[in-house]
Amino acid sequence: MIVVLKKNPEKKQMQNLISWVENLGLKVHLSEGTNSTIVGLVGDTSKVDIELVRTLDIVESVTRVQEPYKNANRKFHPQDTVVDVSGHKFGGVNFQIIAGPCSVESEKQLIGIAEAVKKAGATLLRGGAFKPRTSPYSFQGMGVDGLKLLKKAKAETGMPIVSEIMSEEHIDDFEDVDVLQVGARNMQNFDLLKKLGKLKKPILLKRGIAATIEEWLMSAEYIMSEGNPNVILCERGIRTYETYTRNTLDLSAIPVLKERTHLPVIVDPSHALGISRFVKPMSLAAVGAGADGLIIEVHNDPTHALCDGAQSLRPEQFEDVVKSVERMLPVVGKELG
Amino acid sequence: MIVVLKKNPEKKQMQNLISWVENLGLKVHLSEGTNSTIVGLVGDTSKVDIELVRTLDIVESVTRVQEPYKNANRKFHPQDTVVDVSGHKFGGVNFQIIAGPCSVESEKQLIGIAEAVKKAGATLLRGGAFKPRTSPYSFQGMGVDGLKLLKKAKAETGMPIVSEIMSEEHIDDFEDVDVLQVGARNMQNFDLLKKLGKLKKPILLKRGIAATIEEWLMSAEYIMSEGNPNVILCERGIRTYETYTRNTLDLSAIPVLKERTHLPVIVDPSHALGISRFVKPMSLAAVGAGADGLIIEVHNDPTHALCDGAQSLRPEQFEDVVKSVERMLPVVGKELG
Amino acid sequence: MIVVLKKNPEKKQMQNLISWVENLGLKVHLSEGTNSTIVGLVGDTSKVDIELVRTLDIVESVTRVQEPYKNANRKFHPQDTVVDVSGHKFGGVNFQIIAGPCSVESEKQLIGIAEAVKKAGATLLRGGAFKPRTSPYSFQGMGVDGLKLLKKAKAETGMPIVSEIMSEEHIDDFEDVDVLQVGARNMQNFDLLKKLGKLKKPILLKRGIAATIEEWLMSAEYIMSEGNPNVILCERGIRTYETYTRNTLDLSAIPVLKERTHLPVIVDPSHALGISRFVKPMSLAAVGAGADGLIIEVHNDPTHALCDGAQSLRPEQFEDVVKSVERMLPVVGKELG
Amino acid sequence: MIVVLKKNPEKKQMQNLISWVENLGLKVHLSEGTNSTIVGLVGDTSKVDIELVRTLDIVESVTRVQEPYKNANRKFHPQDTVVDVSGHKFGGVNFQIIAGPCSVESEKQLIGIAEAVKKAGATLLRGGAFKPRTSPYSFQGMGVDGLKLLKKAKAETGMPIVSEIMSEEHIDDFEDVDVLQVGARNMQNFDLLKKLGKLKKPILLKRGIAATIEEWLMSAEYIMSEGNPNVILCERGIRTYETYTRNTLDLSAIPVLKERTHLPVIVDPSHALGISRFVKPMSLAAVGAGADGLIIEVHNDPTHALCDGAQSLRPEQFEDVVKSVERMLPVVGKELG
Repeated sequence: MIVVLKKNPEKKQMQNLISWVENLGLKVHLSEGTNSTIVGLVGDTSKVDIELVRTLDIVESVTRVQEPYKNANRKFHPQDTVVDVSGHKFGGVNFQIIAGPCSVESEKQLIGIAEAVKKAGATLLRGGAFKPRTSPYSFQGMGVDGLKLLKKAKAETGMPIVSEIMSEEHIDDFEDVDVLQVGARNMQNFDLLKKLGKLKKPILLKRGIAATIEEWLMSAEYIMSEGNPNVILCERGIRTYETYTRNTLDLSAIPVLKERTHLPVIVDPSHALGISRFVKPMSLAAVGAGADGLIIEVHNDPTHALCDGAQSLRPEQFEDVVKSVERMLPVVGKELG
Repeated sequence: MIVVLKKNPEKKQMQNLISWVENLGLKVHLSEGTNSTIVGLVGDTSKVDIELVRTLDIVESVTRVQEPYKNANRKFHPQDTVVDVSGHKFGGVNFQIIAGPCSVESEKQLIGIAEAVKKAGATLLRGGAFKPRTSPYSFQGMGVDGLKLLKKAKAETGMPIVSEIMSEEHIDDFEDVDVLQVGARNMQNFDLLKKLGKLKKPILLKRGIAATIEEWLMSAEYIMSEGNPNVILCERGIRTYETYTRNTLDLSAIPVLKERTHLPVIVDPSHALGISRFVKPMSLAAVGAGADGLIIEVHNDPTHALCDGAQSLRPEQFEDVVKSVERMLPVVGKELG
Repeated sequence: MIVVLKKNPEKKQMQNLISWVENLGLKVHLSEGTNSTIVGLVGDTSKVDIELVRTLDIVESVTRVQEPYKNANRKFHPQDTVVDVSGHKFGGVNFQIIAGPCSVESEKQLIGIAEAVKKAGATLLRGGAFKPRTSPYSFQGMGVDGLKLLKKAKAETGMPIVSEIMSEEHIDDFEDVDVLQVGARNMQNFDLLKKLGKLKKPILLKRGIAATIEEWLMSAEYIMSEGNPNVILCERGIRTYETYTRNTLDLSAIPVLKERTHLPVIVDPSHALGISRFVKPMSLAAVGAGADGLIIEVHNDPTHALCDGAQSLRPEQFEDVVKSVERMLPVVGKELG
Repeated sequence: MIVVLKKNPEKKQMQNLISWVENLGLKVHLSEGTNSTIVGLVGDTSKVDIELVRTLDIVESVTRVQEPYKNANRKFHPQDTVVDVSGHKFGGVNFQIIAGPCSVESEKQLIGIAEAVKKAGATLLRGGAFKPRTSPYSFQGMGVDGLKLLKKAKAETGMPIVSEIMSEEHIDDFEDVDVLQVGARNMQNFDLLKKLGKLKKPILLKRGIAATIEEWLMSAEYIMSEGNPNVILCERGIRTYETYTRNTLDLSAIPVLKERTHLPVIVDPSHALGISRFVKPMSLAAVGAGADGLIIEVHNDPTHALCDGAQSLRPEQFEDVVKSVERMLPVVGKELG
């Protein structure tokens, strides 16, 4: 970390800064020039609060040389992490497609979709039991009963299941769930992250709606520093000023992440735009950008016609997406399954 | 709610939409024109998922006429809500100044600051015991021990205390804390909000770093719909592209909120900019915009010199802010205390 | 356009609004309910200033049913527009790759790059003669001399040329330039757009760094409404809070534009991220999203080593991008050239 | 400027970088550590393209120690610049209120408003003759005829006039206009800025809708580096994700600017929020934040009732704003006029 001090810094404040840094176990390299003084901090600077240093009166600017994340950092772990979910691998040359309904609504609905998406090529089943909703007046999900239906669908189809956990109080209920999803709104629910770090299960960590890539990796670090290395990142769109789309899918983040971290990264093209007819082009774009997988909403209940045309695809549309994705994978050196 | 359908909507889909709406207990007014069909929904539309309707194939656009929040809505509660904290009133013509250290660090530090800010004019004492930190390697706060020190400071100074709660597991520990703060990162931790709604205590609800005003009011609604009307909103800066300031303090939100809701709104000028020398102008700006109070970080530990110049003011600087604020309050028809 | 009025609107203001609307040649459909009054405007509402109506005291909300752009609107022109540049077609099943240096620096440099990119598969040559620079102290481009070199390169290689115009004063200098580029900073330089609308030449209209898709289409409309239908849109990244990338490439905009407009859309993967090693994945992502072409910076001057590794690719890296793009095009039903 | 290189940088690339820097007339201080090499650039680094350096393969990060703006920089010009417009001073302890209609529409309208705002306390008159409009189908302003009416109003009331210039072609028409305004959309129309830098007249430079403070100061630098020191900055709201307000008025920018530059800064509370009833609180907030003036839209035409309630105040509302502002000015040590 390099701290540039203002011209003629107050000596006592400078000495205070140096003592504080040394108390953290770091070495200080001081270089005093005519126009500015440069303080280099050498050692493990991940414990230095950069925001605090930046706001000191005597400080002009602070530059991190070392990233604040360690476990998630590709510099210290050059090979791709491959997260194995019952034989389905995330990372490396592997590509996974997770599919299923937004919310679990009934056994018939869920089993129907599970069979349809399996047939179409999906490798894991998703389904929401606990639903984070902006409004307290909206349906909040089936809860524990929804998890039971997911386990039934897993038993019938053999597909591993992925579902969102919203509170540390429910961890026991997720025992047979293969991948625990942390939603965008909980990306910085640090108490929850720490608890998930004590498990060994794969955690699907969605990017917060306005999280920087660095904050996202720091949240992965919360999980990993507690002992759980099985983190799968999921880009799902960020908040911008644009209003024609619900969110802006940040595919630029994929190659950046591939360089910074060894963790697998998948993309959710359903939620970002919120419109099913854009799922196909954005899925292909995600493949081009280098993603390790997709998570796609599929709905098949013909009697629940309201959802037609919303962000969920029908099974036949989903099959068409899978086919195009499979044609594209060889160009980026990946394969499905 | 007004739903404009696309030209020549598919009849079956339109009928599905109408049935779905009627099942929610709403009435439908249909007006078919040559270029578009307009569906007006009459009744309590707060239960309608506008995102879902917007994404239907046959829908061109959706406009809410009725806001999705009810308890927080000024239309249904025209008078200002006044939240009373041991005689200190938030809302109406009252103005409160909450002050104290970022983190509770020791008894000596806390009591020292508490006495200093009280003397300078602060009406409530703040202090962080549980600290939400981006990095797992940063100091996470003193926890329950910090709360104990806060209660001591309350006993010695008579000032009500404000502290942040990060997990529903700690609710019992906050029993003697007067105001429970929900931080920006937990603004949409819905499980936590529901639990706080079952209390009767004042909740200081900070705006999420990228939350819209509507989402913020919906989070207040989570608390209020469970039975707790004592919500104080706190603007603390939003995330934008600007990098010279840590966040952009959105003072435009104050008059907008004053029109939309009856809840009191205070401003945190310390965190938004992250620089103590900007606290004074932004405090005066908040008064001008119509805020009902301020929450300001103050630090007095001369041996802990690192924090000089950071976002915390020294007591004498804080006193200067209070004096200017007091001179300005009559212009906006408010008074301190 | 649907205007929802507040409950019990002041009669005189409502009458004023209706008269004003009727004076614009529109018809008014009034529907008075118990809770709100709905005013439907029928006719060509593109001349109605929606911002103005939205801010009236009596107005609760305004919804456009008809988009404000007409010439650019796919509703009135369902077929793809195909812009022909000396036989190279933008739009439909065609895919074009424009390549060349950021700035024209010398004849040797330009001809060298031109030959290299042509060999690698580029179909048009780009090069900056007038450079919009944030700082007045940065190199502002070779100006008219740069244009002369571009024309030489065109004569030698047969490739059509693309260059940025920054001021209406230079229109005559661009006479032999095949495609005139409007940069992000000038996307709402309306005087310039109107002048370009009087030409017949293809205009490459880059998206403003914080422009909405609608504003972008309205800027296309400025050109088209003056009589020039040959507009090619170019997505080049938008400004967000993320700092690991220079801008966020908004590939979600591609399928949205394909639905809203008949104009061709290309992508600039060099400027958005600003890093050459991300050009390949973002180029493939752009193909997946449905773009009609790419514009890529290529640099070949081995003595000018500073630029190695910056946003410009070397010719051999560019060739690798072209090859992968060509493998991917059949999946989206397009072909190069 | 401090350039941190990656571990084990390629020697030839490092040498290229050093040669390039030295060719720019700068000195290089090299400090090679075990984990990173630090290159310090000493001298006038305003000519170094930081974006270019940042994207080099061997570079880890770049930190500016010296700001890229010189003429606008308070470090080199510690005293406040005071811009004098016919005796009305912007900057220092002075506070100005510019008021008038959004668009000039007729002599009667303009003279009426001019007299009303003068009586209410305004010190300068504003009025739009050339109007930048998102849509080509909206009214584009009266043009040169509007300027003539402004000059008449100036002759009748003695108030200096402020109007927006959109193209360098109109500079002669603005000869008798006292302050030339550059709108948000033209903040980076560099050809226009350079031309205005050749004048001696005060330039009111609005912040671009998504411009950083640094970009804004660099645009001021374009004007100042051509010889015109009379620049007045105007904050008018920035684009964020929030939709309840048209833009987010960035009052945090005021104290930041006051520290970085010696130029006067005023605030436009009418355009940012777009709603007249929010003009008063945001005007008072601007005073609190330390602004040197306000520019406010006022409308007085009772027959042109459409505009009632929009972003323009009526004269009696404007007078109320002026009175409150005057009560608040002593608290911040300023006075009107």
